[in-house]
Parts: sequence; C-alpha cells; structure tokens
Amino acid sequence: MLTWTFPTTELRLMFGAPPRGARTGLWDPTADDGPAGLTLDDVHAALVPGTPDPRVLERVAQAPHLRFVQLAGAWHGGLAGVLPTGVTVADARGVHADGAAELAVGLALAQLRGIDDAARRMTVQHWSPAPGRVGSLTGSRVLVVGAGAVGTEVVARLRAFRASVTVVARTARETLDGRVHGVDELPHLLPRADVVVLAVPLTDATTHLVDEDFLAAMHDDALLVNVAHGRVVDTDALVDELGSGRLRAALDVTDPSPLPPDHLLWRAPNALVTPEVGRRTPLTAARLTELARRQLTALLAERPLENVVAGPPVIPLLDL
Amino acid sequence: MLTWTFPTTELRLMFGAPPRGARTGLWDPTADDGPAGLTLDDVHAALVPGTPDPRVLERVAQAPHLRFVQLAGAWHGGLAGVLPTGVTVADARGVHADGAAELAVGLALAQLRGIDDAARRMTVQHWSPAPGRVGSLTGSRVLVVGAGAVGTEVVARLRAFRASVTVVARTARETLDGRVHGVDELPHLLPRADVVVLAVPLTDATTHLVDEDFLAAMHDDALLVNVAHGRVVDTDALVDELGSGRLRAALDVTDPSPLPPDHLLWRAPNALVTPEVGRRTPLTAARLTELARRQLTALLAERPLENVVAGPPVIPLLDL
Repeated sequence: MLTWTFPTTELRLMFGAPPRGARTGLWDPTADDGPAGLTLDDVHAALVPGTPDPRVLERVAQAPHLRFVQLAGAWHGGLAGVLPTGVTVADARGVHADGAAELAVGLALAQLRGIDDAARRMTVQHWSPAPGRVGSLTGSRVLVVGAGAVGTEVVARLRAFRASVTVVARTARETLDGRVHGVDELPHLLPRADVVVLAVPLTDATTHLVDEDFLAAMHDDALLVNVAHGRVVDTDALVDELGSGRLRAALDVTDPSPLPPDHLLWRAPNALVTPEVGRRTPLTAARLTELARRQLTALLAERPLENVVAGPPVIPLLDL
Repeated sequence: MLTWTFPTTELRLMFGAPPRGARTGLWDPTADDGPAGLTLDDVHAALVPGTPDPRVLERVAQAPHLRFVQLAGAWHGGLAGVLPTGVTVADARGVHADGAAELAVGLALAQLRGIDDAARRMTVQHWSPAPGRVGSLTGSRVLVVGAGAVGTEVVARLRAFRASVTVVARTARETLDGRVHGVDELPHLLPRADVVVLAVPLTDATTHLVDEDFLAAMHDDALLVNVAHGRVVDTDALVDELGSGRLRAALDVTDPSPLPPDHLLWRAPNALVTPEVGRRTPLTAARLTELARRQLTALLAERPLENVVAGPPVIPLLDL
C-alpha cells in the first residue's frame, strides 16, 4: 500500500478517494509534529507546501521509506543535497503559472495606470489623479526575463495588450513564437524596456541577477515587476534607485520576506508591494491536487513522473 | 482656407503642420474666452475636449461658419439638438478603446487579487494578505456589456487570461468571434457571471441600466467593473449592495463625478474607485491627433468623415 501525505485536510479532501493500491494521509512538515495517525515509516510520498525550505525538507527526509517529494513551490539549486540521493523530487511548475502571470500583468497595470495611488487616496476620500502618473501597457516595450511556464503565460497576456514583448532566457534560441534572447544580451535590451518582468526560477545564476548594473541599465521611469523570487533582486540597490525617484517597482516577492515593518521599501516612492499573493488564487489548490493525482497514478503504474527536478523519474514499486 | 481649432497648444503642436488648404488655431470651448487670435467667424472645424457637455457645445455653436465638430469623447443622445442641423459631429470612438479596455482589466485584477488592499496596507507598513480576498481572472466567467470598440478590446484581453467571456449588446447577433447576446438576455446571464464589465455608451437605454434588479441578479461576491459612464449605474442601489458586503465594485466612472469627499462610495466595503483615468494614457493624445489629421484630410478632399454621429458625413468645400 503506497502512502501519500498531504499537508492540509483541505487539500486531502479536495484530492478525494485515492486510486486502488494507495492511501492518503495528513502530514504538514512545516510544523514539528509528525504525520497524523501514521508513523514516519509509513510515508512513501509527501506533498510539501509553500516555498521549499531546507529545514522543512530535512524533516521530510526523516521518513526512511520516502521515495517521492512533490513540491507545491519551485525548486531551487540551494536545496540539492538536503534530501537523500535516490529520492525523486518534482516541483509544481505550471500550477502557479496562470496565477503568477496574471498578477504580473495586474501589478504592471496598477503601477502604470495609478490604480495603487487611487486605492490609497480613497482612504482620504480624495478624487484626483496623481500628477504625472500616466502610462499604459498598450504600446509599451516589455522585457520578460524567464521563458518558463510563468514567463510564457506573461507573454501571452502582454501580447493581448498590444505591448511589444521581448523575451530573455538563460540561452538564446529560436522558437515558434519568435526569438528568445540570451541573458548575455541584457545590457543591450534593458535600456529599451519600459517594463521589465522577472519570471525566472531562483538559481545561483539568478540570485541578485537584478543588481546595481542591471538597474542602472534601465531607462528613467522604467518599471520593474517581480513575481519570481525576492532574492533575484538586490533589494538595497533597488531601494537606492526608487529613493532617487528614477525607477518604479511592483513586487509580489521581496528579500527579506515577509518585509519587516521598518523596511525602506514600504515608503519608497513609486513602489507597489503585494504580500506574495501570486499563488493565492482559487485555481492553485485545484491544479495542485490534479497534479498530485497524475503523479500518484504514475507512481502506481511505474511510469515517469512529471516536473522531476532531482532523482530518478521512474520509481520501481518494489522499492515502496 | 479651412480653419480647424484645437483646445490646447499641446495637441496643436502634436498635430504639427496642417495640410495645404488648411490652417490650425487654438480654441478651448470649455473656457469662456473665444478662439485665440481668431474670430468666431473664422472657425470651420473644432476639436472639443473632454466628455461633451451641452454648455460647451452651445459655445461652439456660436461660430457661424462651423461645419464640423470632432469630439474627444463619446457622443450621447442628450446632445442632439444642441448644435445646428447641418453641423457634422464625429466622436472619438476607438481613440480611447485600448486605454479604457486595459484599465477595465487592471481594475478587475486589482480587485480580484487584492492589489488595492495591498496598496493601502503599505501606508501602515503591514505585510499580510487581506483575509478572504482570493480570486482570479483565469477561469472566471466574465460578462462584458457592450460590443463597441471598448468592449471588443476588453474581450480580446480577457481571452488571453483564459477567462470564459460572454458578450451582451443591444441586439443579439452572430459574429466571427461567437454569439453576442441581446440585452434582454441579461436576467439569464447575470447570475452566472463572476465579473461584469460595463463598456456601453451612455444613451437613454443604458442610463441606470445597472439598477436594483440588475445588481440583485448578480451572484454573491460577484464584481462589477465600470469603465463606461457613471450614469449607467444607479449609484444608490450599488452603495446598498456594497454596504451589505454582497457585491464588489471597481469603478473608473461614478455618478456624481467627481465623487464628493463625503460620498458613501469612498468607504464602501470592497469598492475600488479610480478618478476617470481610463483616458489618461500616453496614447490618447497621439491617437486623437492622428484622427484629427485623417478628418482634416477627408474634409479637404470632400471625402466621408469617420465616426460621424450627427449631420452629413460628406461636407462640400463650397460651404466653408
């Protein structure tokens, strides 16, 4: 009997009856207590909530028969080595793509059209557009950094707004949708962008990708949108550029996170910060349980798992 | 020599050199003073700024040789009769469509994803998502009321978000893009909509189209977005539904406008109000002067004018 654990009762109920040969259990490895009504020995596969964290994965690794970890967030290089070799890890790419992509567009629109300012002025019951804040996505030149699931969905939405979209990824390539530029071309591409959307995974190469030089290459009054990961941006460098009034930013992710009450970003001019709501959509839980069902079905059939980021993609049932 | 007036120096400069046979002048009919450096006798064609207003049009009508009025806003029925018969009037449909459509989507996203709340919470430096505010455009059922330039652009954008879009217009018809439902079908369509976007012109038929019954037909927690005209909505009825917490609203236009400081809408729960920024985009002025050039060229060539809402579409030059 293959045992798969969910971190919340809500997700377990949404998943419903397990397929024949499997059972579901409850284990929230972000908390200290072990699996509910099960022993660590019982757990073969676990869904790990939130942004993966080494401490949480260390707790999951204590299950001696663990063979498969389904992340609810995106894997990043820093986690390699936390789980024993041979444990297969899959991320949830695609599950959050629609939610993060629509938030990226929503943040850009809110900043460009002054919706954030209007929301603040409502509290003082003041009817007047903020002076000087006039922009639009239509006709803007937007640089999307990242060509994965989120980046692809961002591009599709931006094109509907008649924005002029350029895509940058690790390596340059031609696609059916046009040219993807390599990250080495950023110095030439950044000065032409009115809006830069970050949609990259967090890796060693993308940590502080947006540093002093990156920001300095952006033109005056350009807008930086981050729905990727807080650590992709050097926050101090960004605070400097915002403080001088030269750039604008709309950030769903920050470093540090959560943003402490005394942080300079809260009061930086032309900054819009949302508290990691990229994944907070009604679709996320439904898509996550759909992914879990496909993965559990694949496990039971000894077929390749989806979105594998570490370990073997096929797990022999004899092992379980 | 055909004389065409612009309401601002900015627009006149953006328009640039007039074609042979015409000259441009400066006349802001929203102010009391007449044309600058011209007499009323000189004016053959005038660009009228803002939302057309009977008092402004009465002032324009004092030019005895006036033959053509280009509105910068949308014509509505209440204006017929203000200008003498024989004066051709054209509206600026399409000029604002991209700007209004992207704002409609931006307002919907801001409300559904809690961007407006986050903007307000920034002022108290508070990092936490508002409880219970979780929605998304992706997968939502959106009813777009109005199939004109703005409605069409709204639909194109919504489809990129994988929203399920239904369109309602005055009369039902089949289009290449699918069925447009008739306004008589609203009672059946409203209960199924998660988001209702208003993109209709203001006419007798659309004044207070959104009344108590319309709102009552919307399901709990549904969102009303208005980028059309404040008077399309019965504000008192909307304030009641917002006050009870049953519906949500994102409004770029209100009745009254501007919204006075003591108005209940400012503090209504789940309301987002922007101060008529639908047209405030860098594209609007450029598109308006492009339209003015096409119209002036058509006038000089005795060809049909665009967007004619009253009077003859072709004006013989002999008349000027």
